[in-house]
Amino acid sequence: MASGTSPALLHLDDLAVGQEFLSGEHLIDEEQIIAFATRFDPQPFHTDPEAARGSFFQGLAASGWHTMALTMNLLVKSLPFAQGVIGAGGEISWPRPTRPGDVLRVRSRILEITPSRSRPDRGIVLTRSLTFNQKDETLQELTAKLLAFRREA
Amino acid sequence: MASGTSPALLHLDDLAVGQEFLSGEHLIDEEQIIAFATRFDPQPFHTDPEAARGSFFQGLAASGWHTMALTMNLLVKSLPFAQGVIGAGGEISWPRPTRPGDVLRVRSRILEITPSRSRPDRGIVLTRSLTFNQKDETLQELTAKLLAFRREA
Repeated sequence: MASGTSPALLHLDDLAVGQEFLSGEHLIDEEQIIAFATRFDPQPFHTDPEAARGSFFQGLAASGWHTMALTMNLLVKSLPFAQGVIGAGGEISWPRPTRPGDVLRVRSRILEITPSRSRPDRGIVLTRSLTFNQKDETLQELTAKLLAFRREA
Repeated sequence: MASGTSPALLHLDDLAVGQEFLSGEHLIDEEQIIAFATRFDPQPFHTDPEAARGSFFQGLAASGWHTMALTMNLLVKSLPFAQGVIGAGGEISWPRPTRPGDVLRVRSRILEITPSRSRPDRGIVLTRSLTFNQKDETLQELTAKLLAFRREA
């Protein structure tokens, strides 16, 4: 399990199924939610606390893509892949909305490692990253295909 | 096919498999790429044009989540769902990186409509949204589950 500052950089050779990585924390507030949504997801339930009360979300909720962007920031700092966190794609869902005052943290686990057949220097690492709030409620589930590279010979 | 300003608001009753929606355009530049990545995906290939040259991306590339956030902005303005664009989750991939100078636009198509069994006022609309640049290259493929509501009786 890796966390904290300046962990050793990991290559494909160093990764194993079941390995876990814990991120730091990020406190999200109303100002951040409104700023992100105004720019990228301008809908009243993300930008206007008053209007949000009468909406599907019954109160201000962060854009799911804001939760994802903050998760990415936490991942970049907690997945010490030698060449960075490079995603080819993934699956995402939001079991519940992110609210002002939530403290986000991410736990990632390696599910599968598939060496490339055509390019022996790399492989695809399937990871599952759960984003929790301070009440241990799951805000987001992300299953991502990440690229990792072998240590050079 | 819907596009342009102030289209009629659509309820579940108005949607059909095969319906398409075209978005407006967004020009992405180096400044936007660096600003987003500095905040949410701080890796040299997204924040530093010099360092990016020697990276996997061989030049500055937008964070995939930036491409997604800009896609969401274009979707909010081009999918005139009556209660907004509310996603339960989805699948995303990036066939190629988004570069400074790319002009993004999104074409969305309804793939499936599944009325809710437990809640007759709503349903899940499976949509596929492709994000293109000005050369018609596909930058992102998103398959999303969106919530839509029936017109009130």
